[in-house]
Amino acid sequence: MPLTTRATSRAHGGVQGVHSHASTTTGTDMEFSVFVPDHAPGAKLPVVWYLSGLTCTQANVTEKGEFRAACAEHGLILVAPDTSPRGDGVPDDPQGAYDFGLGAGFYLDATQAPFDRHYRMKTYIEDELPGLVGEHFPADLSRQSIMGHSMGGHGALTISLRNPGRFRATSAFAPIVAPSEVPWGQKALSGYLGDDREAWAQYDTCQLIEAGARLPEILVDQGLSDGFLEDQLRPGLLEDACAKAGIDLTLRMQDGYDHSYFFISSFMAEHLAWHAARLNA
Amino acid sequence: MPLTTRATSRAHGGVQGVHSHASTTTGTDMEFSVFVPDHAPGAKLPVVWYLSGLTCTQANVTEKGEFRAACAEHGLILVAPDTSPRGDGVPDDPQGAYDFGLGAGFYLDATQAPFDRHYRMKTYIEDELPGLVGEHFPADLSRQSIMGHSMGGHGALTISLRNPGRFRATSAFAPIVAPSEVPWGQKALSGYLGDDREAWAQYDTCQLIEAGARLPEILVDQGLSDGFLEDQLRPGLLEDACAKAGIDLTLRMQDGYDHSYFFISSFMAEHLAWHAARLNA
Repeated sequence: MPLTTRATSRAHGGVQGVHSHASTTTGTDMEFSVFVPDHAPGAKLPVVWYLSGLTCTQANVTEKGEFRAACAEHGLILVAPDTSPRGDGVPDDPQGAYDFGLGAGFYLDATQAPFDRHYRMKTYIEDELPGLVGEHFPADLSRQSIMGHSMGGHGALTISLRNPGRFRATSAFAPIVAPSEVPWGQKALSGYLGDDREAWAQYDTCQLIEAGARLPEILVDQGLSDGFLEDQLRPGLLEDACAKAGIDLTLRMQDGYDHSYFFISSFMAEHLAWHAARLNA
Repeated sequence: MPLTTRATSRAHGGVQGVHSHASTTTGTDMEFSVFVPDHAPGAKLPVVWYLSGLTCTQANVTEKGEFRAACAEHGLILVAPDTSPRGDGVPDDPQGAYDFGLGAGFYLDATQAPFDRHYRMKTYIEDELPGLVGEHFPADLSRQSIMGHSMGGHGALTISLRNPGRFRATSAFAPIVAPSEVPWGQKALSGYLGDDREAWAQYDTCQLIEAGARLPEILVDQGLSDGFLEDQLRPGLLEDACAKAGIDLTLRMQDGYDHSYFFISSFMAEHLAWHAARLNA
C-alpha cells in the first residue's frame, strides 16, 4: 500500500512525520502522524495508538500532546490517525455541528446512508492502518498499545475490548464510556447506525464489559473541572462496570483539570511510562 | 494597571493563563500568556521571558513549546508576550507580508510614521509588561531570565545586552543575530527606523557586542536543517563577535533539526534547566 509523506521534522531525537494514503476502507485520502524515535538499524519498536477526540485531526496531539520526549525515552512509536474521513463527497452533519460527521467518526463502521460509504473508522483503525504502519515503519506489531481522548478514549476502549490480546496496555483521557447513555453518543450512534440499540452495543464500552468483554487493566485520567464530565463522560459508569466485571481500573480524578490538551499533556508522560512498562516487559 | 484574564487551564501542576490589558505603550490591547507553577502561599518565583518569532502570537509557544513540565519541576514562571501590537488602526506591511508589521514587531521602538505610534515593543517588553507581571503574579523580579526564537531570539539577546545585570540567563533558539546584515532585519530596521544605520545598532546583537555590550554567557541552539540558517540567521557572526569580546557562547548546531516548534520543544527542557541553575543559584 503506497504512502505519501507530507512533512517530517526532527524532534526529541526522532522523526515526527505526517503521512497520507488513499484508504480503501473509507474511500478517501486519510492523513495520520507517526513519531519514530531513534533506533538501531533493523530494530523494531512497539507501537502506541493515540485516538483523538471530537473536532480533532492528527495535528492536535501532534502539536500539543507533549508525547515525544516520553516516546524517545521509552523507545515507542506513536501513531495518531484522523477522526473521520474527509474530502469531496464525504457527507457532514446536516447542520454542520461539531459532534457528528467530519471530525466525529466515533471509530465505528456506519450502516446508515449516506454515511455508510465513507464512515468506516472501525475497520480503518483495526485493520487497514495497522497494515500500512507495519509496512512502512519499524513497527513491532506484536507489541501494541492504545490510548485516546474523549471520543478517542471511547475508540481506544472499545477497540481494545473487541480485540482481546491485541493491546498490551489500554488507557484514556476523559473518555466517553457509555455513548448509548449520553447526548454525544446517542446522536452519533443513531445517526451512523440507526435506531436499533442492539447495533450500538459493540461501540459502547460499558455494554461491551457487561456482555463479557474483558481487559486485564485500564488507566483513565479525568479532570474534575471538565465541562463535559457530568453530561457526556460519566466515568462512574465505567467504574461500576469494571467493578462488577473484576477489571482492574485505575481511575484518577484530577482536581482542577479541564478537557483540553493542557490536561492531556500534563499526564501524557505518565500514561506512556505505564504503556512502556507493559510493552517493554 | 488592570489585567483581564481571558482563559486559565490547570496544567502540569500549575496554571496556564492567557491575559490581556490596555497597553499605554502600544496604545492597543495586548495579549500574553503566563504559566505559574504551584507554590507555597506568599512565595515568589523567578520569571523566564520567552519572546516569539515572526508570525507568532503568545499561543504558539503556549500550545507547542513543551515548557510547563520543566517550569513546574524548577519552579519557574514563564511569560510569553505577543510579537507586535494588533487591532484597529495598527498599520501592517503594505503588501501584507509576514516579515513586517503585524506579528513582526522586532522588539524595537519604531521612529518612522505610521509605525511609530503603536510599534513600541522594546519599551513594552522592557518596561511596561514587567511592571504588570510584578503586580499581578507571584513573580520575583530580582530573578529574571530571557529566551526567544528567531526574531524572538534577536529580541532576547538585544534586550539582555542593553540591560546588563537584569537577566541571570540569556538563551535563544535559532536567533537572528545580525539583523543589519540579513534581509529580514534590513527590511524591518529600515521600515521601522529609517535608513540611518546608526539607529539600527541598538537592535543588532553583533553590533551591540562590538560596541562593548557584554553578557557573561549565552546559550544558543541552531538546527542544521533550518531553511533560514544561511540567509537570515548566520550564527557564525555571533560566534565571531562573542569570540572577539570574550563572551562565553555555547552554540550547539543540532543535526537534522529545522526552524519549527518541533525543534524548539526538543531543547526547551534543557534551556529551562540551564536557566533554572542560574535563577535558583
